[in-house]
Amino acid sequence: MKYCFGVDIGGTTVKMGIFEENGTILDKWEIPTVVANEGAAILPDIASAINGKITERGLKKEEIAGIGVGVPAPVTSAGIVNGTANLGWKYKEVKRELEESTGLRTEVGNDANVAALGEMWKGGGEGEKNVVMVTLGTGVGGGIIVDGKMLVGAHGAGGEIGHICVNYEETEKCGCGNKGCLEQYASATGIVRLARRQLENETRSTILDRETVTAKDVFDAVKAGDEVAKDIAVTFGRYLGHGLATIAAVADPAVFVIGGGVSKAGEVLLSYIKEPYLEKAFFAHRDVRFVLAKLGNDAGICGAAKLVLGD
Amino acid sequence: MKYCFGVDIGGTTVKMGIFEENGTILDKWEIPTVVANEGAAILPDIASAINGKITERGLKKEEIAGIGVGVPAPVTSAGIVNGTANLGWKYKEVKRELEESTGLRTEVGNDANVAALGEMWKGGGEGEKNVVMVTLGTGVGGGIIVDGKMLVGAHGAGGEIGHICVNYEETEKCGCGNKGCLEQYASATGIVRLARRQLENETRSTILDRETVTAKDVFDAVKAGDEVAKDIAVTFGRYLGHGLATIAAVADPAVFVIGGGVSKAGEVLLSYIKEPYLEKAFFAHRDVRFVLAKLGNDAGICGAAKLVLGD
Repeated sequence: MKYCFGVDIGGTTVKMGIFEENGTILDKWEIPTVVANEGAAILPDIASAINGKITERGLKKEEIAGIGVGVPAPVTSAGIVNGTANLGWKYKEVKRELEESTGLRTEVGNDANVAALGEMWKGGGEGEKNVVMVTLGTGVGGGIIVDGKMLVGAHGAGGEIGHICVNYEETEKCGCGNKGCLEQYASATGIVRLARRQLENETRSTILDRETVTAKDVFDAVKAGDEVAKDIAVTFGRYLGHGLATIAAVADPAVFVIGGGVSKAGEVLLSYIKEPYLEKAFFAHRDVRFVLAKLGNDAGICGAAKLVLGD
Repeated sequence: MKYCFGVDIGGTTVKMGIFEENGTILDKWEIPTVVANEGAAILPDIASAINGKITERGLKKEEIAGIGVGVPAPVTSAGIVNGTANLGWKYKEVKRELEESTGLRTEVGNDANVAALGEMWKGGGEGEKNVVMVTLGTGVGGGIIVDGKMLVGAHGAGGEIGHICVNYEETEKCGCGNKGCLEQYASATGIVRLARRQLENETRSTILDRETVTAKDVFDAVKAGDEVAKDIAVTFGRYLGHGLATIAAVADPAVFVIGGGVSKAGEVLLSYIKEPYLEKAFFAHRDVRFVLAKLGNDAGICGAAKLVLGD
């Protein structure tokens, strides 16, 4: 077994890579995700891209460990998806379909869990076996690695941490219908919401504009020494840090890997999370590291490859 | 391999059992836990009890799969304990010591995690591979089973859920120094605290006595139709249900097994937990069962046995 494929299915494109066993990426490319017709073409398109790459490189199937796949939906341990928000799929036997169309062993996981596995293998969590990855993007996603393996859970929804309640007094509703979800404070849109709240009655001068403010603006302003922006970052960090303390009580990670668009703010982001984390963490969970994700858009294909390579 | 030993080390007694591979308990007994002299005698006492039982029954070591042990402290995946509250141990290589003194393979886990494994194997979680056990006793303990295995974590402190924050507005301190911990509402002492708060300014008639009230009194009064007691149970259930929704977001269990002294109240207890759980649970985690623990004091020795028997 010298090679394997890592596949990261997104709503717009499918990212694909061919890896050597040691983790070296030999080649990576993308194909469009054709969601029309309930996403019927997605898996056949992936299979023909893989079969094409095998022919192009003159590989033998015996040299290939298999195909790992990340899917933006809960995935059961049998590699089955029961509905997706972005792909058009309803019930879909991803593992079985790809194994039949490629003749290669296929392992499938939820994309956030798979990205966490990638960051454990080759990214911010390298060298650790207990990792929590938190993705701060449009929403808040999570992936949890326990003893080197993805926490899949009974419904394929382990580590779905975006909607844990971190504020039981919140009055505004989250998109999920609940109130006080982590996503309302720590996602890019959540940070904008916090900024607008702060700016509504703000009397101090600030470089932030209430109408156009973005999450990036907030952390750029923090770096520029803007006191109003710092207060917004403190609020963001308090809710996220408290939320992570709760997650640590359950999963007891060695490291939190913070990724997603918001994490591009850099190390300054982590400084706002650590203190409130330590404020709420149980003593046994205080010795934990906070690091930024390292793999960016490659986390998905790397983790998918690792899924099929195993320990 | 026909037999194995399950050992549950407590602060006062060590519970021990000899099991057949299928889970049948052939014999169980207790020895005192001698905590004097930094607990130096505890492991030698266990080893001689096991060696004695092997001789007594005329067993051969080749017939014995090994010894599983539950310890009331965090335990690393290498079977090492770094300090205990009740046993006098500081650094203790439990696995290595017992393997050397008995010649039998030994596996060691935290007692709450081990009890959860027992309940998965033969108790309330039977048939499931993703189980969260919550022990409502003097404190609140937790044990988490993911895909049939204990969630040990980086510090041996996975599932230490007693101190997750479920009320960020709490003003009274928990024993851990924080405020708003699950244990302040859902343990036996937490329920007494809630009852006393409720009874302080209560004008309705009630059978509860503010000076002498116990957790058992509260649920006995609930069963007798006492409206004040029902309000206390609602408060208890709200904090616990909300806390379990957070735990589900991380661990995604199929079933919550509720054990410990407080759970002797029976099914009525579960009825107060379910509704607030569903109020806060993310949609993917709503399909979960709540059951009472079934094994009582045997959960520890059963889980310990399972630890060494494996899948």
